[in-house]
Amino acid sequence: MPAKAIVISIGDEILYGQTLDTNSHWISGELDNLGIRVLKKITIGDTKTDILSNLKEAEEKADIVLLTGGLGPTNDDLTKPCLTEYFNTHLVRNEDAYENIKEIFEKAGWEMNESNLQQADLPANCTAIKNSIGTASGMWFDTEGKVIVSMPGVPFEMKQMMTDSILPRLKAQFVSDGIYHRMIRTIGIGESKLAELIKDWEDQLPNEIKLAYLPTMGAVKLRLTADSDTDLVKESIQKQIDEVLPIIEKYVYGFDDEEIPNAIGRILQERGQTLAIAESCTGGYLSHLTTSVPGSSEWFRGGMIPYSNDLKRDQLGVEEKILDEDGAVSEPVVLALAENVRKTINADIGISVSGIAGPGGGTEQKPVGTVWIGYADKDKSVAKKFRFIRNREINIKYSAIAAFNMIRINLDKD
Amino acid sequence: MPAKAIVISIGDEILYGQTLDTNSHWISGELDNLGIRVLKKITIGDTKTDILSNLKEAEEKADIVLLTGGLGPTNDDLTKPCLTEYFNTHLVRNEDAYENIKEIFEKAGWEMNESNLQQADLPANCTAIKNSIGTASGMWFDTEGKVIVSMPGVPFEMKQMMTDSILPRLKAQFVSDGIYHRMIRTIGIGESKLAELIKDWEDQLPNEIKLAYLPTMGAVKLRLTADSDTDLVKESIQKQIDEVLPIIEKYVYGFDDEEIPNAIGRILQERGQTLAIAESCTGGYLSHLTTSVPGSSEWFRGGMIPYSNDLKRDQLGVEEKILDEDGAVSEPVVLALAENVRKTINADIGISVSGIAGPGGGTEQKPVGTVWIGYADKDKSVAKKFRFIRNREINIKYSAIAAFNMIRINLDKD
Repeated sequence: MPAKAIVISIGDEILYGQTLDTNSHWISGELDNLGIRVLKKITIGDTKTDILSNLKEAEEKADIVLLTGGLGPTNDDLTKPCLTEYFNTHLVRNEDAYENIKEIFEKAGWEMNESNLQQADLPANCTAIKNSIGTASGMWFDTEGKVIVSMPGVPFEMKQMMTDSILPRLKAQFVSDGIYHRMIRTIGIGESKLAELIKDWEDQLPNEIKLAYLPTMGAVKLRLTADSDTDLVKESIQKQIDEVLPIIEKYVYGFDDEEIPNAIGRILQERGQTLAIAESCTGGYLSHLTTSVPGSSEWFRGGMIPYSNDLKRDQLGVEEKILDEDGAVSEPVVLALAENVRKTINADIGISVSGIAGPGGGTEQKPVGTVWIGYADKDKSVAKKFRFIRNREINIKYSAIAAFNMIRINLDKD
Repeated sequence: MPAKAIVISIGDEILYGQTLDTNSHWISGELDNLGIRVLKKITIGDTKTDILSNLKEAEEKADIVLLTGGLGPTNDDLTKPCLTEYFNTHLVRNEDAYENIKEIFEKAGWEMNESNLQQADLPANCTAIKNSIGTASGMWFDTEGKVIVSMPGVPFEMKQMMTDSILPRLKAQFVSDGIYHRMIRTIGIGESKLAELIKDWEDQLPNEIKLAYLPTMGAVKLRLTADSDTDLVKESIQKQIDEVLPIIEKYVYGFDDEEIPNAIGRILQERGQTLAIAESCTGGYLSHLTTSVPGSSEWFRGGMIPYSNDLKRDQLGVEEKILDEDGAVSEPVVLALAENVRKTINADIGISVSGIAGPGGGTEQKPVGTVWIGYADKDKSVAKKFRFIRNREINIKYSAIAAFNMIRINLDKD
């Protein structure tokens, strides 16, 4: 029976739709990875009665209650006074928290005021959790076998606390057997087709290995989970992965936490190859995903965004005639872009995107969502046409994912 | 007394952190805009007991309960059977929903199967809400002065239903007086400094106008709200805006829904000017935000991402000597990049970014988070140094926002 958790996000700005809550999303993913069952996620405002009543209800239903938000130094932040009242205790100055706040202010060269100092006053019954980035301390409360933890709402402060201290402590206290996950990451195949392809394999999976299909934009992750993390279990899961891989090999780009841009980067780095990008309709998004990978300067040479046609011609040598006859969204244009950006930027591989993202610019022959992607290396050039849907944001995102897949597929054939 | 709402998101994939829930965020923002008070947002899994118990609790506490998710054609989608049980009713074939599904399948040239047809069977006591994009119908339930609405979890299907029919109906039924919001959007000034600057103005605001500070990354929005939308109220709010503007003019980039890239685009278009971007550490993100604006091809000429130093030199004419002596992250480099990208791409304005996004590449003199931004037009070139923090993702995002602000500030001085 896995431990049960409820995640509570506190803050008017989240409740009223001004700030998107990514904290509870991240937290619930981490808890799920540990094998802790998330029962419910709740968002409430900075309102005393709501904080107290939801805290009570959550403590009744779950073993673990994780709170984020409401720990700022101003009067509208109520989480700490509410916890003090909830546990019928009082605030005491925490020396570690005090030293931490002092250090942060000294480093930054700011002057401390009374409200900053008060952030070091914590409920007497809690253990402080160090916040090495900010001034709001985390608080850990043990209550009759259950745990309530309060964290700041600033995402990277929360994440660091979770990673450094809260998740390891929760694991030690609530996860007896451990849980073991492996992820096979596929791209270029839909969920139902993938299920068809691996049906026989899925049917023979031993009972102790659970399979989940996790579809995201343009990609499907296969997650194998066991309720135990012994070496025997790990071997058994690896054996299953080895068996299914030959069936779906052409769709698999990576394993576990590796996203597609990271996978492309790893492969290029292993081969000592470099990449150049020429993107029109994706307008920088493909390069952005590429350069979001830490260390990408090792294998990404640079990019060009020839948004206007004359730049496609003057900067990237696409012939005027082709632009006139075939239009900017066409096979010969993306081929020329991929070949020329590769040469211009002096990279091993060139990738190009040209399409109609919308909302304007569509025609009957080339409706919004029509996208051509080109790939070039020293041996070959290829292009492929895609048809996405009628939404600018989604077309840009799908195009970038499809472009990474073009690189992967064509690299693999080398 | 405003009407009260609870928003419930249903789906295992949301609860377990596989899919980020943007629906409840968007919905609560729209409800808040209408003057409907959001009490709570809840996320639960595809579990019958959880759906039923949370539905009951929400109906007790709120006037309006909005559900998203769990309306797919497969067996793990439980929202419709739960609603049928909750209202102690049965399913009947809805002819409008049936025709809609048929039409969608015919257009796409797909074959319909039994599970698709069953999506046209709805609880007898609901009114169907048309889904013109997908096959899952929305459902509107009236129950003793309260309203429960169920919508699909696919964001753009949900948004279209809300915009076309649910929000107008909720407004008619629950918002007697209307509510009126105006937003003043500022950038380049912190929340507390802004509050200091406009303290006198804020103190004299009439009681019926509420002011909220909404800080987001690198920017603060000021929201003025009144509980009524008569012409008199609108005029009164406009008068207050006119009074505060001279005090904060240099920080204001736009009003109401206009984001900073859109504001820059509007200004450039009004002036008939064009933009070119040379971005190194932001790696495409600045161009991505720029080209996320529909119609940006009217004023954005194109961009270059000279990620390696030799491209800064060969493609954008930055002298080797400067790169050697001052380094890529320096004032002369961003000045040269801005001036040369402007010329190379033949635009009126050039903007450039070079910095150390992290995690690697930092030195004692130029730690991670050091970013230079350059601006050039036909009359002048300027550069400014920024110091962000130790996180790659955040440094990239802040740098892009700061670059838009550089454009705004320097354009305004023309």
